[in-house]
Order: sequence, then C-alpha cells, then structure tokens
Amino acid sequence: MSIVALTGGVGGAKLALGLQRVLAPDALVLVVNTGDDFVHLGLHVSPDIDTVVYTLTGLVNVETGWGRADETWTFMQALAGLGGETWFRLGDGDLAMHVERTRRLAAGESLSAVTAHLARRLGLGVKILPMSDDPVRTRIVTADGELDFQNYFVERRCVPVVTALGYAGADTARPAPGVLEALRAPGLEAVVICPSNPWLSIDPILAVPALRVALHDCAAPVIAVSPLVGGQAVKGPTAKIMAELGMPVYAAAVARHYEGLLDGFVLDERDAGDAAQIGVPVCIADTLMRDLADRERLARTTLEFAGTLAGGRGAP
Amino acid sequence: MSIVALTGGVGGAKLALGLQRVLAPDALVLVVNTGDDFVHLGLHVSPDIDTVVYTLTGLVNVETGWGRADETWTFMQALAGLGGETWFRLGDGDLAMHVERTRRLAAGESLSAVTAHLARRLGLGVKILPMSDDPVRTRIVTADGELDFQNYFVERRCVPVVTALGYAGADTARPAPGVLEALRAPGLEAVVICPSNPWLSIDPILAVPALRVALHDCAAPVIAVSPLVGGQAVKGPTAKIMAELGMPVYAAAVARHYEGLLDGFVLDERDAGDAAQIGVPVCIADTLMRDLADRERLARTTLEFAGTLAGGRGAP
Repeated sequence: MSIVALTGGVGGAKLALGLQRVLAPDALVLVVNTGDDFVHLGLHVSPDIDTVVYTLTGLVNVETGWGRADETWTFMQALAGLGGETWFRLGDGDLAMHVERTRRLAAGESLSAVTAHLARRLGLGVKILPMSDDPVRTRIVTADGELDFQNYFVERRCVPVVTALGYAGADTARPAPGVLEALRAPGLEAVVICPSNPWLSIDPILAVPALRVALHDCAAPVIAVSPLVGGQAVKGPTAKIMAELGMPVYAAAVARHYEGLLDGFVLDERDAGDAAQIGVPVCIADTLMRDLADRERLARTTLEFAGTLAGGRGAP
Repeated sequence: MSIVALTGGVGGAKLALGLQRVLAPDALVLVVNTGDDFVHLGLHVSPDIDTVVYTLTGLVNVETGWGRADETWTFMQALAGLGGETWFRLGDGDLAMHVERTRRLAAGESLSAVTAHLARRLGLGVKILPMSDDPVRTRIVTADGELDFQNYFVERRCVPVVTALGYAGADTARPAPGVLEALRAPGLEAVVICPSNPWLSIDPILAVPALRVALHDCAAPVIAVSPLVGGQAVKGPTAKIMAELGMPVYAAAVARHYEGLLDGFVLDERDAGDAAQIGVPVCIADTLMRDLADRERLARTTLEFAGTLAGGRGAP
C-alpha cells in the first residue's frame, strides 16, 4: 500500500513531513517540483527538492522553512567582496548540495539519481523523485516583462504583477523514473496534492504531459489540500497571484483550478463557506500547520478522507 | 622602472609580499605558477594565485600560509555528510574565489582576466599574472605511479618517491597577456625568482617556451633567491625531491638547476660554504622570513644585489 504526494517547497513540505511521520517509510513517494530549478553561479540549484529533503531529515531551518539550521554565511560575504551575485543567498552548508549535485550531473548522472543519492546520504527514508529529469523552467509573465522563476520570486520578491505563467520544456519533459510506476502501483491508496502554490509549485508538475495523464487515469483518489487558510495564503504569493490572474481569491477557486483531476478537496475550516461551490467531496479540517502535531494530524485527516473516497471516484 | 617576480605559493609569496612593501604598486609584476591548478568538485582552483592574492592583500591565514584568515568550514562538513570528496579542504570564504572564477571562465573570460578582476576586487595594487592562460598541469612520476599535482601534494602528502616531473600542456602554452611585455619592458630592473620549490613551482613557469626564451633574452639581471636554508627547505618537499631525483641536497644544486638563466643567486648565510660552487655572482644573506621585517629586508637585499649586476650580465 502506498501514497504519492505532489509537492513544492516550504508549505507542501510541511504536509509531506506529516505524511512521513504517519506512514511507513516505504509507503510514501514524493514527487517534487523542479520548475524552480536553475543554474546559479554555475551551480545547479533545486530549491524545492532541497527544502523537502531538509524538512524531512530535520536539517531545515525551522524559522525560515528553507535552508539548513546552524548555517554559516561566509561564502556569501566573500562573494560580495569579489563583486559576485548575492541576491540569491546560498549558505555554506547548503552549498555542498549544489556543488555535489552539479558535479554529479556533469558526470552524467540524472537528477533523480543524484537526488536519491543525496537524500539517502542525509538519512531520508522515503522515496523522493523530481517530477522530471528533463529541465522544466517556470517562467513568469509580468507587467514588467517575462521573468525566470527565481528572479521573480527571490530577486523581485514577487512584487511584479503576474499576467501569465509558462513552464518551458514541460511539453517534451518525461516523468522521472519511478513517477509513473508510483501512480500506477496496484497498492496505491491516494495521491495527495500538498498545500503548495498551485501555479508556482504544482502546475509545473502537472505540466509534464505523461504525469498529468497518469494522474488523471490513476485508480486511487486524488486529494488536494487547500493552500488557503481563511482566504489567505499562509506564506507566499498564492493569493496575490490569484487576484492578479483575475480570479476570486477563495479556496473554491483552487479546487476549480484542479478540476478534472480531483476526487476530493481538504478545505480549511475557516473557509467552510466555500464548500458548496466545490464540485468534489470536501473534507473540512484545520489545515494550519503550526507544529509537528498539526502536520501529523492533517496528514491523518487527509489519508482518512482518501479512505472514504477509495473504491468509487468522486465525480468532477 | 619595474621588477618581475616569478613565484609559486606559500614560500614565494613571502618574498612577493616583501617586494610589494618596498616597491611602488606599479613597479611590481608577479608571474604566478598555474601548474598546480586543477578542477575539483567542478570548480577551477588556482592554489598559487590565491595564496599570492591572499598574502598580498592581508587576507591570508598567517598560520598556514594559505587560505583565508577567519575562515569557516561548514561547506566541507556538509560535503562530508553527502559523501563528497573532502581530501582537498576548501574553506567557505575561499570557495567564493573558486565559484566566481569558474563562473567567469565558463562565460569565456581568460584566467588572466579573471585573476585581474578578483585581485582588483580584493584591493591588490600590484599586477598579478598567471604564467599562462593555457592549461599546464604538473604531473609527478613516482614509485607509486604518475600522480596529478594535488593528489601528490595534498592527498598523498608528498610521501611517494619522485622519479620524474612533467608539465603537461607546457609545450604549446603561451605566456599570459602581459608576461612577455613585462620581461621586455625597457625599464625592467630585475627578474626575481622567488624562493619557491624549483621543481614544483618555478619549473612549470619556465616550461612555457616563449616565457623561458624571454627570460633568457631579457636585458635585466635574473636573480634566484635560494629556497634552502641551512640545506633544508623551510617548508615543503624541496629537499626531499632533490634527494629523490638523485642530486646533492644543497643550495649550489638549486643554482645549477637554473643554470643558463641566472645572473645572480641569493644564498642563505647558513649555506655560505656553497658559494664557491655557484657559477654566478652570489649574495649571502639571511633568507629566513619569520616576520614582515624579514620579508622587507630580503626584498631590499635582493633588489640591491640586482642593482650591482645591472648593466653587465653575469656569466653563467
């Protein structure tokens, strides 16, 4: 029996951690967004993979939700002294991931092989798969022009008004080895779309054609956990982007965005009024994950909800 | 009026610092060994250039003679946790040099352009030139087989017995821009071969054909400062290599090694007995550089000695 979870970085990783804690290690497969990946200072950075790995191994800086705890910043200080680019902050310990990943990719290893190696070395028990070994790059069309993801997200701090999004390379990207197998596994109990930003973190995954088809065709229920709490994003620009894209900023609009893929939707109790406008079975829960107990509780609630949907798919 | 100094890392950098302190900034041109350069973890490391830059900008770790003072080692610790290669220790701040150099080289800049940029950013006033922008790689033939320089020097700690040395790529390497101009400058007063290891640090420079010819033909006196003090190397494997290559371990053998290029030799006072066996004019001095005053004093002594040789080249 197994669970597949689709996730981006910080927000999604919280629920992924909850799932890890309530499931046996071999029962969870994480499929992680790589649309944010980029080459910076010559190094291949996979922000969402690293955030998930750090979160699930306990290495994460819990205050920021990304990067390592007990980090030092000597490299960035020295780089500033050399006139190098410092808008994307790379901690000294974090840098080891990027250097080792880049070295292995240059030696011909796939991103999924490198990810598996690094995660195993850090003691991660669950299987973590990049959505694809082929490059997919999220591009943000804004009122200030088209931006690469990190230039929009980190350098410009999500300030530019988003008018459209694109996922360059997605059309021809193949799911990474293991992704389709996980979605077609006979023992698959549920697919959980974690409460990550639907446009920035989940859509790049869904833009990989064979992955989307496999998700659509999979026998197990597909459940999304709402990234909105009381009509607001817990962190990040989800609500801002929804408004800029001209849609009403409420949880039902997120469910509608996933229409055709979902069998169930976990809605925050503060948004319970949205339930009537969601065309799939809804589970109302406290989705705010403040502490570890919250993460485990939401994971259990989501899995129990999936259990009620198994055997007969909800109508979209 | 100008001085050219040929130098390797730690030992040579001490005299280079002395020369910097007694000369006007625009009067000194340093030509640095790049035979130790290598690509490690995907990064282009130029150990001798960095040691010289750190030494002359005051950033150096004075206890080791290489690397940066106030360094942190979080990257190496994290890399060890990932199962990466840790035999060559890269400090967090030092890493900024390698990352920025690698990025600029990949973008098409030459090593000399990158070196000039990094040195300028760190406030270095004197001109620092790699011996060549073309790759030259020192290879050590040992009783245990042929080794790359860093594998011999760092990983194997100079333990294998040296039977021969080679400088791969030297035959076709061209001097970096500025090197021949410096050696042919009408105002050139002296060329100083710093007390670096003749086989590991100076010979790679001399193995660049056009550089060697220009040195041989240059109008100014060429002075070598002995790397031996009392028949011993101050640091490093100079004496060990001399013995392994079957030559007598004394300063006169170093002078003989440079035969045909030298117009004068600065001999340590503890080796004064060697003077009669050296076929060029000799200056006897205290060459041990314990502190800054020693470095300045030896620099002045060397330049004054060169002054006595100017106008009429000593017979080899």
